Amino acid sequence: MNFLRQLDKASVKNNSLLCVGLDIDLSRIPPDFLKKEDPIFAFNKIIIDETRDVVCCYKPNIAFYEMCGIYGLQALIKTIEYIPEDIPVILDAKRGDVGHTAAAYAKSLFDVFKADAATVNPYMGYDSIKPFMEYREKGIFILCLTSNTSHRDFQENTEGKTPLYKQVAMHAKEWNIYGNCGLVAGATNPEELKEIRQIAEDMPLLIPGVGAQGGDLEHSVKYGITKDKNRAVINASRSIIYSDDPGGAAKKLRDEINSFRK
Amino acid sequence: MNFLRQLDKASVKNNSLLCVGLDIDLSRIPPDFLKKEDPIFAFNKIIIDETRDVVCCYKPNIAFYEMCGIYGLQALIKTIEYIPEDIPVILDAKRGDVGHTAAAYAKSLFDVFKADAATVNPYMGYDSIKPFMEYREKGIFILCLTSNTSHRDFQENTEGKTPLYKQVAMHAKEWNIYGNCGLVAGATNPEELKEIRQIAEDMPLLIPGVGAQGGDLEHSVKYGITKDKNRAVINASRSIIYSDDPGGAAKKLRDEINSFRK
Repeated sequence: MNFLRQLDKASVKNNSLLCVGLDIDLSRIPPDFLKKEDPIFAFNKIIIDETRDVVCCYKPNIAFYEMCGIYGLQALIKTIEYIPEDIPVILDAKRGDVGHTAAAYAKSLFDVFKADAATVNPYMGYDSIKPFMEYREKGIFILCLTSNTSHRDFQENTEGKTPLYKQVAMHAKEWNIYGNCGLVAGATNPEELKEIRQIAEDMPLLIPGVGAQGGDLEHSVKYGITKDKNRAVINASRSIIYSDDPGGAAKKLRDEINSFRK
Repeated sequence: MNFLRQLDKASVKNNSLLCVGLDIDLSRIPPDFLKKEDPIFAFNKIIIDETRDVVCCYKPNIAFYEMCGIYGLQALIKTIEYIPEDIPVILDAKRGDVGHTAAAYAKSLFDVFKADAATVNPYMGYDSIKPFMEYREKGIFILCLTSNTSHRDFQENTEGKTPLYKQVAMHAKEWNIYGNCGLVAGATNPEELKEIRQIAEDMPLLIPGVGAQGGDLEHSVKYGITKDKNRAVINASRSIIYSDDPGGAAKKLRDEINSFRK
């Protein structure tokens, strides 16, 4: 089954647009876990067990696993294997390189780590993204307008007629011949998100920046969803996984998101 | 010793601006190596032994190691450890993410893989690059104008008054408060390289795209060097490492580069 069908199915099954970001930082998890043989996996396992019925997907950011070296990457593989098959996994890696190198990255993310989808960086243009798109069963989320403050440096540059993030959205729409592309559009810019949804039509949007980053949930949902009130993947990481009750926090956020879908 | 001094010293010692790209693809190395216990390291060891007296640095691209999973990343760590201490290592990773995630990537590249410098992607702006720059002893090469054909999609967009790659070069110059930044500028665009050198002043430029990608060597050297005829790091990967005589090919290219420095 391809990623988009997986996502739509999980979204219906759990009545959810919530994505939980598995961004594990060993310095922030409860000290008890550090005594375990495999603290990263032990922590993730609990998060997954408690949230698997209220999410439409999971999104580990590979940076937090790379930071722990070989051990971290082994824990990432184990984590992705543990995630129930009917919940797709977006591996947040923001890769991008010249064609033959991008093909090596695609092989890494999809064949080695077995992600169902990945995020990629558009700076180097079409030939740096094409090798990912050629995995037609996989989902590709192209960075468009990111949730960090400095996204303004280049993405919103208004010296030209069309800001860079809009150029990226329009190109992505055109490149999407296999129907497996989506865009990353931060919750911290709801007005721009509205424009991105118009350009993207029914492509999925991955929307980070609610929770710890303070993005606008109501408008992210209202402006991010398609006409069918779907395919806005709202990501929260720290506000869920470091909560005292991750399952409760995820359910509450899922329900809050749903209240804005109506 | 900081990266830039390491680079300058190695460049003087070996009278070289040549960087050899250690982009190992198991499908392209001689079949004899595949029988060895650690084929990637065995292959890299020979390349390093044969070229260490004619290069100013090495540049493994992490994509080719990630593609081989945990084993590949172990071989990368071993390869970087094996490189003589007086030859700096640029880890080509093109990373970039929101601040706290970028900090995790910086930790990975500099503390886990022990690179002396790394390449980063500027799409997300200053706060995605700052955590790398804060490793003041390390070098940071920001993608500016890349050597692939599709760099035109966004980097050379001329709708605005200032193309994106020039905006990146100007911002990098301004961000470079610790003096540890450089830029990536492909050999496939010599005229633009000339402008980038003017903006960058004495910052180091990493110049990929000669050799297999067909960049213009003469003009890359002439336009890429500083007034002191230095700090243009000319990278060649496939044309050296898959040559029948990597040591001879590297020496020949080093000498050819030097003929254009005069």
